[in-house]
Amino acid sequence: MQAEIITIGDEILIGQIVDTNSAFISKELNKIGVSVYQITSVQDEREHILRAFSEANARSQVVIVTGGLGPTKDDVTKNTFCEYFDDVLVKDEKVLAYIEFLFKKYISTPISDLNRQQAMVPSKAKVLHNQHGTAPGMWMEKDGTVFVSLPGVPFEMRGLMTNLVLPKIMQKFERPHIIHKTIMTYGLGESGIAEIIEDWENRLPEEIKFAYLPSLGRVRLRLSAKGQDRERLQNLIDTEAKKLYPLIGDIIYGEEEDQSIEAGIGQQLTQKGLTLATAESFTGGKIAQQITAIPGASNYFKGTVVSYATETKIQVLGVDPEVIKTDSVVSEVVAIAMAKNVKAMMKTDFAIATTGNAGPTKGDSDVEVGTAFIAISTPTQTFAKKFVLGNHRERIVQKAVNKAFELLQKELLKF
Amino acid sequence: MQAEIITIGDEILIGQIVDTNSAFISKELNKIGVSVYQITSVQDEREHILRAFSEANARSQVVIVTGGLGPTKDDVTKNTFCEYFDDVLVKDEKVLAYIEFLFKKYISTPISDLNRQQAMVPSKAKVLHNQHGTAPGMWMEKDGTVFVSLPGVPFEMRGLMTNLVLPKIMQKFERPHIIHKTIMTYGLGESGIAEIIEDWENRLPEEIKFAYLPSLGRVRLRLSAKGQDRERLQNLIDTEAKKLYPLIGDIIYGEEEDQSIEAGIGQQLTQKGLTLATAESFTGGKIAQQITAIPGASNYFKGTVVSYATETKIQVLGVDPEVIKTDSVVSEVVAIAMAKNVKAMMKTDFAIATTGNAGPTKGDSDVEVGTAFIAISTPTQTFAKKFVLGNHRERIVQKAVNKAFELLQKELLKF
Repeated sequence: MQAEIITIGDEILIGQIVDTNSAFISKELNKIGVSVYQITSVQDEREHILRAFSEANARSQVVIVTGGLGPTKDDVTKNTFCEYFDDVLVKDEKVLAYIEFLFKKYISTPISDLNRQQAMVPSKAKVLHNQHGTAPGMWMEKDGTVFVSLPGVPFEMRGLMTNLVLPKIMQKFERPHIIHKTIMTYGLGESGIAEIIEDWENRLPEEIKFAYLPSLGRVRLRLSAKGQDRERLQNLIDTEAKKLYPLIGDIIYGEEEDQSIEAGIGQQLTQKGLTLATAESFTGGKIAQQITAIPGASNYFKGTVVSYATETKIQVLGVDPEVIKTDSVVSEVVAIAMAKNVKAMMKTDFAIATTGNAGPTKGDSDVEVGTAFIAISTPTQTFAKKFVLGNHRERIVQKAVNKAFELLQKELLKF
Repeated sequence: MQAEIITIGDEILIGQIVDTNSAFISKELNKIGVSVYQITSVQDEREHILRAFSEANARSQVVIVTGGLGPTKDDVTKNTFCEYFDDVLVKDEKVLAYIEFLFKKYISTPISDLNRQQAMVPSKAKVLHNQHGTAPGMWMEKDGTVFVSLPGVPFEMRGLMTNLVLPKIMQKFERPHIIHKTIMTYGLGESGIAEIIEDWENRLPEEIKFAYLPSLGRVRLRLSAKGQDRERLQNLIDTEAKKLYPLIGDIIYGEEEDQSIEAGIGQQLTQKGLTLATAESFTGGKIAQQITAIPGASNYFKGTVVSYATETKIQVLGVDPEVIKTDSVVSEVVAIAMAKNVKAMMKTDFAIATTGNAGPTKGDSDVEVGTAFIAISTPTQTFAKKFVLGNHRERIVQKAVNKAFELLQKELLKF
């Protein structure tokens, strides 16, 4: 039982957009036991789409197609579906009524013929109601393979997948279980880890696939298994994962697949009834943004001062200008002052502060591009650590954000 | 002359990572006149990789392969390359020396046999020096088609593409020019635009491809052309693009492909010598983060107060608690007070402020999830607008950030 994903759109092939839909669809299919064999991105072009359809048809039982369903000329998916299924387009009155409803309720411009044409669907298709947009989803079958056509707008695609496509696949197909467990580590590279766990890896049962996923100073270790007996697979994976802790427990910071380190911090703060504020210089609000991306952050997060300019550090955060003169704005003492002062200002239990230089030029300090100080203030102490994070602006910021969360998490365990 | 991209890695097919490499590679190839025909993501599995190689070989002159070059067991790309090219792995002394250098300089753990094995390369391969990591890139040829193997780590892949692969492709192949122009609009849907510009679109020269790219209240309009005479193509596209302005000039906010609205704001502020601060509630620092992601932001951006908690709005931003009681914390007056006060606090010319509710629960206010007020303070006035932004947390925040930049940009034009 396997699936494929075909994404249609020149915008993908010229690099104008990153295809995020495929990752979402793959993850959701995996959860219900459907492996994705291949993802193929093709042009808005009849012949290319037809060839991709028949190749996927020969290999897989489910083909999820996204994109090319818009009302404008460059969208050819629907006509190509008709050709592949030897079908014609017919008007679907329900879809038309919904398009008219959407226009009346949300859209200030009057409905046009182009919009009305979105109600035309292949006669053999089962229409999937898209509550978030005017392009309906479609479910068609050929030689035992299911083709699903979804709009490329991520929000609309997600609604259709979750509410209609996944339940229908679960109903139609017998599926095995697919179990993944991902252990998140920091501070050691993949070959360093591989050496330590070599014996363990060599003795893994055949059913378990193991992979290393390195990214910005962290390595995720993934164990996967597939089969009919969910409980047995889960036990197998749990047993093997547990054996890793005596080997590399000091570099493991979490376990769940979807759990970011900041989500873990949020859970701990909520459980302990503690609060957090941040003072950010070169990270420019990215720490705050990652914290507040988590629903429920208002339970523990009070706020941030992004003191991008040196005078903001002095005027808003009350950092002593003399210290900035003697020690530089990128220094341990400034980081510590920022953390202490924002904690006092926002009356929180913990604070994170960052000061550094992400480049490309040196700015208000003489330190090398990539130098950063990260301070953590807890109910009992405040300290700062120095980091040298390379010379790539975006990576410097993201690495510093990661480091800040790692430092905070270690301190949180003490309270 | 066309290329294909093959990305190798189970992590892509189970949705654990989003493939951002393909968009980068596609964009860079386009810039040098190479069209990408197809992107294929396949598993870390010998047979699957071999099939993808021969299919791509039959269609395209350049095949860029990423991933599967790590030092650990799950990485099979190099051996599969050997099999496909009927080749063997040999030790490359230069690569080995560089791996040893990297370990000495940057890595605290001692070098291992696994790391040394990364210096093994197919004997027929031309090695591409990866200055950012231990896995070298490789350039191989078969039946007139070039295969390039690059590491999957985005940072390493990018360095190799930019410094070595693109120049080598330019040297080896005659290429046409590919020109894109993207016009960015906001405030009207794609069908609304399509109706207004229908005549224009119908009269476009055959050489120009035209596409609509809708996303979160904005539609990008892309004109593309391909051919030998770069100047003629550019003139053709410029001429057609110019005709759009009398038709939809009121909804166009910019033109360049890579230019975000906040980058445009940054340019204007820099040119005019003006400064900006923000006060963010439910957007949680995302406005600040997008502003500071742009190199040079320190020229005009002073800082932000993220006042996520109501008491932070009172204590740090000095919003009158009486007003919060009478008007609610999500209100026009609160947004205006936040903007005025942060502007005064950070001594800037402009300020943006946001207050709203991104859900999932109502929080400190009775307003519906999705309600937001965005205030803009300029040297001459401060005003706020109300928005209703749906019920999807992530989208509510991103839409509000977009709206904030749009409002600010309109005001900036007056100074």
